[in-house]
Amino acid sequence: MSGRAVDRPAGPSRRAVLGGAGAGLAVGAAGGAWGRRAWAQAPAADAGAALGGARVPFHGPRQAGIVEPAQARVEWAAFDLLSSTRRDGLAALLRTWSAAAARMAAGEPAAEGENQIALDAGPSSLTVTFGFGATLFDKAGLADRRPEALAALPAFPGDALDPARSGGDLWVQIGADDALVAVHALRVLVRLATGLAAPRWLMSGFARTPGATPHPMTGRNLMGQVDGTNNPRPQDAGFDAAVFATGPDWMAGGSYAVLRRIRMLLEGWDTLPLDRQERIIGRRKSDGAPLSGGPDAVERTPVDLAATDPDGVLRIAPDAHVRVAAAASNGGAAMLRRGFSFHDGLLPDGSPDAGLLFAAYQADPAHGFVPVQQRLARGDGLSRYLRHEASALFAVPPGAPEGGYVGQPLLEG
Amino acid sequence: MSGRAVDRPAGPSRRAVLGGAGAGLAVGAAGGAWGRRAWAQAPAADAGAALGGARVPFHGPRQAGIVEPAQARVEWAAFDLLSSTRRDGLAALLRTWSAAAARMAAGEPAAEGENQIALDAGPSSLTVTFGFGATLFDKAGLADRRPEALAALPAFPGDALDPARSGGDLWVQIGADDALVAVHALRVLVRLATGLAAPRWLMSGFARTPGATPHPMTGRNLMGQVDGTNNPRPQDAGFDAAVFATGPDWMAGGSYAVLRRIRMLLEGWDTLPLDRQERIIGRRKSDGAPLSGGPDAVERTPVDLAATDPDGVLRIAPDAHVRVAAAASNGGAAMLRRGFSFHDGLLPDGSPDAGLLFAAYQADPAHGFVPVQQRLARGDGLSRYLRHEASALFAVPPGAPEGGYVGQPLLEG
Repeated sequence: MSGRAVDRPAGPSRRAVLGGAGAGLAVGAAGGAWGRRAWAQAPAADAGAALGGARVPFHGPRQAGIVEPAQARVEWAAFDLLSSTRRDGLAALLRTWSAAAARMAAGEPAAEGENQIALDAGPSSLTVTFGFGATLFDKAGLADRRPEALAALPAFPGDALDPARSGGDLWVQIGADDALVAVHALRVLVRLATGLAAPRWLMSGFARTPGATPHPMTGRNLMGQVDGTNNPRPQDAGFDAAVFATGPDWMAGGSYAVLRRIRMLLEGWDTLPLDRQERIIGRRKSDGAPLSGGPDAVERTPVDLAATDPDGVLRIAPDAHVRVAAAASNGGAAMLRRGFSFHDGLLPDGSPDAGLLFAAYQADPAHGFVPVQQRLARGDGLSRYLRHEASALFAVPPGAPEGGYVGQPLLEG
Repeated sequence: MSGRAVDRPAGPSRRAVLGGAGAGLAVGAAGGAWGRRAWAQAPAADAGAALGGARVPFHGPRQAGIVEPAQARVEWAAFDLLSSTRRDGLAALLRTWSAAAARMAAGEPAAEGENQIALDAGPSSLTVTFGFGATLFDKAGLADRRPEALAALPAFPGDALDPARSGGDLWVQIGADDALVAVHALRVLVRLATGLAAPRWLMSGFARTPGATPHPMTGRNLMGQVDGTNNPRPQDAGFDAAVFATGPDWMAGGSYAVLRRIRMLLEGWDTLPLDRQERIIGRRKSDGAPLSGGPDAVERTPVDLAATDPDGVLRIAPDAHVRVAAAASNGGAAMLRRGFSFHDGLLPDGSPDAGLLFAAYQADPAHGFVPVQQRLARGDGLSRYLRHEASALFAVPPGAPEGGYVGQPLLEG
């Protein structure tokens, strides 16, 4: 793969330091050290500059915010076009949004819509990613160009979806290692949409702050579980084919993002004994090692679904999450997960409104998220502790070159 | 002042490196460099360890989380005692909470209630601060020991308070530079309260991630304004007397925290021209310099309320925020503000549910927050863009020594 923001040398990873306008250290995620924040490898002469100054270029063959490690803060915003907005209005919006995103990613003021919230800070690895929902195409007079891969997701057993927090004509994913930088970008983009599109829903999430762990490692979710061990890595064979689309024309090099707001029933989960939690997942909680591997196993020890204990009992339970997920993947399903935790206060019953902002990128959801979720919703012991409360599917077009904007080949093609 | 977490040498600040259990670098806020994160001065050999490993001791003469700079993430949680909880139950809860907070602040598992969310991370400057609401004292059979300073705050013009998000018997402030560390501590403390107290409301906020700016500086709020220039500093004359209480006995060395959830009407504010925003505040937006000081003024230039332009017009408008706030302070009112921004999605009308989680610490609210807010609510031009939606007042007891717990002198005295 030749994506702008990722380099994948076979040997030691190198940072992609790019020139261009704006101060700051321009770096991409290092494919050779997936899960590591490449800029943590930058000279540590000034720890401050390393975090704030880290810069992920907006322009490039692929949109930023897909293969880069999850930042400390994410904002998801869905927008609906106003009824008066036509194709030219949508093009104007995307042109304006792209220009503002490029400036902010470079550490420059957004100019239009600028409110100075982020004036003192560096871009802090800001990425802005745009997506198009199925409903966008009719409204913008582009129904004949809607990709088949944007077909509605099927209903899954156990779904408890809130339409008001699902779907949307447009999606923006904003990630940064500083919350004010992320919220600044959100406010700028909302203001720039005035008169053309209105926010439909917003969600905020978080992942590790760079440097919170002594060395880079797979993150944990709010169940306390190491989450993402088997996520495909850019250097893996077949990564590009699984994650990035080859068509239709304007989508070549793009991807499809499935979003699910998955609330965790933490009050039940947290009262389970540790061994019960581990049996439900199929991995040790302390380090993520598979239960099939014995005490010497580590996180990356391959899962052995056939392993039994001396009594002949399967070490990975029939309904363990890793077993059901693995079975689903046997058909070749693969997706790149890039989730964030959320914690939005209390529900009326006093339980925490918390869980996972799940995002999965794939070349085609029909061969990625859909078959996996069909199996998980039916057979995964973990499902009893999860509620899928919102869902969306967006086409994430390829990136824009300098001077261009995301979606230009669709809107001007 | 001799607080554990702050040292205030006249010369170059020194870090307070403390021994004790647990790995990590123990540092306090450096009084000689207020607004700077002292641990940013730590050896930068491993930028990661500097952020995650930064540790603020829980035990000491004053509670942590008052004079320390605001962390990147804050969780506020109010609890109400269950009707069955008596004084001994409250003592048991505070003992358990204090012990867990001390362990987590040292980077150790909380043991009881542990869910492993933060297992890989360092304490990341975690502080846990406990407060007692006026309603606690009757319920715990301590009505005769309720401090006079906990008298109900008066109603202020423009207040639009939601009782469900106001008040509370107990308050916990959790701050950390990693959101998972903060949320982990919240979950642990909620679980440890089971059977004794239940969450009443939760709020989450954020401030700058360490290193997001090239050098330490006063933060900005979601209006984009530099906010906190005139906050008192620990090295200022009179700081201790203004912020820390001398009684009653069990409160000596404690403080009183006024909390306000202040929603900002950003859709109106963000459409104001820059010069109008600056006139409302009385400071330049770009750098916080007072409008009375001309083009060469800087953030710290003293405000000259009498300065006029060549036409005789006051440079600081009659209803400018800095003028009204200064007038209120002339009577000697002083408080230490330690606020955070919040952004909680959209309101039903589509506007952002965002603003300031305002917190002010003072020796007595009647001589701190109350007179200032009485003036601001009436005369401050900024008030038109703010809605005070929730309010609370808590007695924040002094810190606990090793082996003790917060509130012990009240509950066992």
